Amino acid sequence: MERKGLIQVYTGDGKGKTTAAVGLAVRARGHNLKVCYVYFHKDPEKWEYGEHRVLEKLGVDVFGFAKKHPHFHKEIDPADIRKECLEGMEFIKRIYQEKKYDVLILDEIIISLRDGFLKEEEVLGILDSKPEDLELILTGRGAPEKIIKMADLVSEIKNIKHPFDKGIKGREGIEY
Amino acid sequence: MERKGLIQVYTGDGKGKTTAAVGLAVRARGHNLKVCYVYFHKDPEKWEYGEHRVLEKLGVDVFGFAKKHPHFHKEIDPADIRKECLEGMEFIKRIYQEKKYDVLILDEIIISLRDGFLKEEEVLGILDSKPEDLELILTGRGAPEKIIKMADLVSEIKNIKHPFDKGIKGREGIEY
Repeated sequence: MERKGLIQVYTGDGKGKTTAAVGLAVRARGHNLKVCYVYFHKDPEKWEYGEHRVLEKLGVDVFGFAKKHPHFHKEIDPADIRKECLEGMEFIKRIYQEKKYDVLILDEIIISLRDGFLKEEEVLGILDSKPEDLELILTGRGAPEKIIKMADLVSEIKNIKHPFDKGIKGREGIEY
Repeated sequence: MERKGLIQVYTGDGKGKTTAAVGLAVRARGHNLKVCYVYFHKDPEKWEYGEHRVLEKLGVDVFGFAKKHPHFHKEIDPADIRKECLEGMEFIKRIYQEKKYDVLILDEIIISLRDGFLKEEEVLGILDSKPEDLELILTGRGAPEKIIKMADLVSEIKNIKHPFDKGIKGREGIEY
């Protein structure tokens, strides 16, 4: 199968970024592509036992870094989160060297950048050094101009209407 | 688990509507919810053997209506497509009566509406008669104002940048 891997970005303030990334993983697995799903700032207590478990069942390798975000865990030292994000960067570089995967998803990595846990040049370095055949997918609201410029495909998911705005709380299996 | 089913709409011209719906199906299955995935205007020759197969493996029931769109199949009579879309409507009403599912996804049903195969009042009727506990998800570009007004959650996926604009063709396992 001829393919040159592109860089895809799913950003914006609307619901659907992570679910789109999960859907891409499913589509790729449907064609027997090898998929690695790396998530940042997702609390496994909430998340891992939903999508995570199902993705693993489908043969997707799933890894998480900086699992606790200070927004939800006030006790966390931001310096520790930066350290964990940098471990994620090293992990991605190893993935690049191994050339084991066709698709690499970096879910919410744009949040690491937006919230200052990663520097722009660090994330741009990851985009710049991507192996040619690898499809790279980044998600997270607030993608900066330089990331958008380097990406081949960018979808902005805009919140037109959200039940949270009406005070409806997140529901297990639907929102997380 | 307390839940009152909402109406979610994924619209807009960007990539990510169907993948978001597939991701929602995965999330729901991760929590053992019962999911039905109904698609319109998707050619099974291209599509069914990717997402379709994987979703079925996860225990999602998948059904397709009006599988050939005149945009790709010039020989198709639009009257036949309308008939098949109406069969889809009848199918949805049976789903409502059976109360077997927690989540019902109607992928690209907004295209049926946009392209005149379904009337606005027919689709609004489906929204209006939704069983209270059922989570209903609609996708397709060009959602009209009345649909947006009836929905609880609306994400507009905007195309900021797309490789097709540069002449890069759809790739198996990535775009379809």
